[in-house]
Amino acid sequence: MHVMIIGAAGMIGRKLSDRLVQERSVGGAAITQLSLVDVVPPVGVDLAGAAVDCITSDLSQAGAAASLAASRPDVIFHLAAIVSSDAEANFEKGYRINLEGTRFLFEAIRLEGETRAYRPRVVFTSSLAVFGQPLPDEIPDDFVLAPLSSYGTQKAICELLLADYSRRGFLDGIALRLPTICVRPGKPNKAASGFYSGIIREPLAGQPSVLPVPRTLRHWFASPRSAVSALVHAAAIDLKALGARRSINLPGVSATVGDQIDALRRVAGDGAVDLIREEPDPAVFDIVSSWPRGFIATRAKELGFAAETSMDEIIRVHIEDELSGTLN
Amino acid sequence: MHVMIIGAAGMIGRKLSDRLVQERSVGGAAITQLSLVDVVPPVGVDLAGAAVDCITSDLSQAGAAASLAASRPDVIFHLAAIVSSDAEANFEKGYRINLEGTRFLFEAIRLEGETRAYRPRVVFTSSLAVFGQPLPDEIPDDFVLAPLSSYGTQKAICELLLADYSRRGFLDGIALRLPTICVRPGKPNKAASGFYSGIIREPLAGQPSVLPVPRTLRHWFASPRSAVSALVHAAAIDLKALGARRSINLPGVSATVGDQIDALRRVAGDGAVDLIREEPDPAVFDIVSSWPRGFIATRAKELGFAAETSMDEIIRVHIEDELSGTLN
Repeated sequence: MHVMIIGAAGMIGRKLSDRLVQERSVGGAAITQLSLVDVVPPVGVDLAGAAVDCITSDLSQAGAAASLAASRPDVIFHLAAIVSSDAEANFEKGYRINLEGTRFLFEAIRLEGETRAYRPRVVFTSSLAVFGQPLPDEIPDDFVLAPLSSYGTQKAICELLLADYSRRGFLDGIALRLPTICVRPGKPNKAASGFYSGIIREPLAGQPSVLPVPRTLRHWFASPRSAVSALVHAAAIDLKALGARRSINLPGVSATVGDQIDALRRVAGDGAVDLIREEPDPAVFDIVSSWPRGFIATRAKELGFAAETSMDEIIRVHIEDELSGTLN
Repeated sequence: MHVMIIGAAGMIGRKLSDRLVQERSVGGAAITQLSLVDVVPPVGVDLAGAAVDCITSDLSQAGAAASLAASRPDVIFHLAAIVSSDAEANFEKGYRINLEGTRFLFEAIRLEGETRAYRPRVVFTSSLAVFGQPLPDEIPDDFVLAPLSSYGTQKAICELLLADYSRRGFLDGIALRLPTICVRPGKPNKAASGFYSGIIREPLAGQPSVLPVPRTLRHWFASPRSAVSALVHAAAIDLKALGARRSINLPGVSATVGDQIDALRRVAGDGAVDLIREEPDPAVFDIVSSWPRGFIATRAKELGFAAETSMDEIIRVHIEDELSGTLN
């Protein structure tokens, strides 16, 4: 089986590569070729029994997608996108990369299939940003697409394209609306949502962290490990049960910031919690307070998708995967 | 005020032109220029006090939209599209005309605004085809976009683009999901939905008509007159009340085929009804039985949109507008 990861150099892409190296197969079929694709050169991996290609390619450039599709991967993970704040600040760039790049990919797959039968599994990472206020506490599986950002609009459009290309038989696609990833490893970044991970990650590392929003704010989380598990699961399962509706709200943990802090206290003690400094930032609050607070995710659970069931578990996963299983 | 109709040569486009000729203004502002645009040469009209241009232009060709936007219309009615069956049979053509054409238009408006402030009202005709089964008897205002055709996918994507371009301030847009037009004037055509008008129009003209579906089938209707009234209303009202959700389900009449036939009998007698011959066609039934049966349309009513309230009224509108007010 030939597996391709587009967006392989990102955080999720790298973790997905590592997982495939461990598992060496997808849905019982051995991986014989792994193609890692990104706009920046992806870091190679060793996967026993498989050829591994590292490809530097910008999907939004004419011809790039055709060359990828010509290698006829059986499974394509399409994770590549610019982030929400970048797409909002740079209108043309957002549409070029997040919409046109994806459309070029789907078109290249369709045209590849005109020469010889070809219908790859395409696993696309979508976002909670396809939803916009007003939102219920628990968003049902089939909720109106009403994004309030250009990024969310681009993701919603790609979902619609994925569904139509799947319905027409050009590819076999599934779009996963990932929960906000917590605890995101690495350095603090400028994303408005950065504090959701920062208030766990930094105290666990003995570093101070700023909390810019009230403790009552509720949001929807899953670990990087769960996100990668969902991608791998989506690559392997029979999608017939999805019917024409190819987008899935993934399971996750609905937690307030207060719940996060309580969990941190249980896992790492008062000393960790004392490293959190409250410093309200109305600009950050304005952005994140409009985001979803929770999902029902019935369809995903029926299809076998799972996630952590508590913030404590999410923190323990971070300690296991990023801190070698122990707190210093 | 400069008004432009793109898709002016179609049935709704021609009726809209005629209405503007009668009204000579939009929202109280006199029309000083009327631009009629279509891929086939539009038929000119005389509008007192206004310059009328007839422009033959294919929106899906590079540069065409820029030239239209350069004339800086205050109101743009964008009605141009290929129909559902054509978009399903011709995948590339559908995306090129129904999606790219619309995107080119929105982009041309945005770029025109970069040279000098410009934010036209854009009234876009969308479709019930943005919705797909399973559907409730009465579809609420905010129902999931889950089209089951390429045409519906293209319309849903254009709605999302319209909302994002509006939110960003590049244009002031509204998308109207028109009910199925009944009674559509003219000759019978090959559209799967053709019989919904045919079983009224042909008997009123003393001609036989074939009914290919059971009388229990329910659907959602408005007259051509109501559709034109909705377009004109949408051009004039304040859209602030819409917020970010720029797509509107228009009011209409939910009626079964049996209701249609009963109304025909009340308006035109048993002789007209006797001209309907039942000839079941499972292929037609498969298509039309998946379509919406009714809408709640609360938002549209609050915004002042209206339609007929009975099939009898829809038939009388046809007699007034197409048959000079009398039956022969």
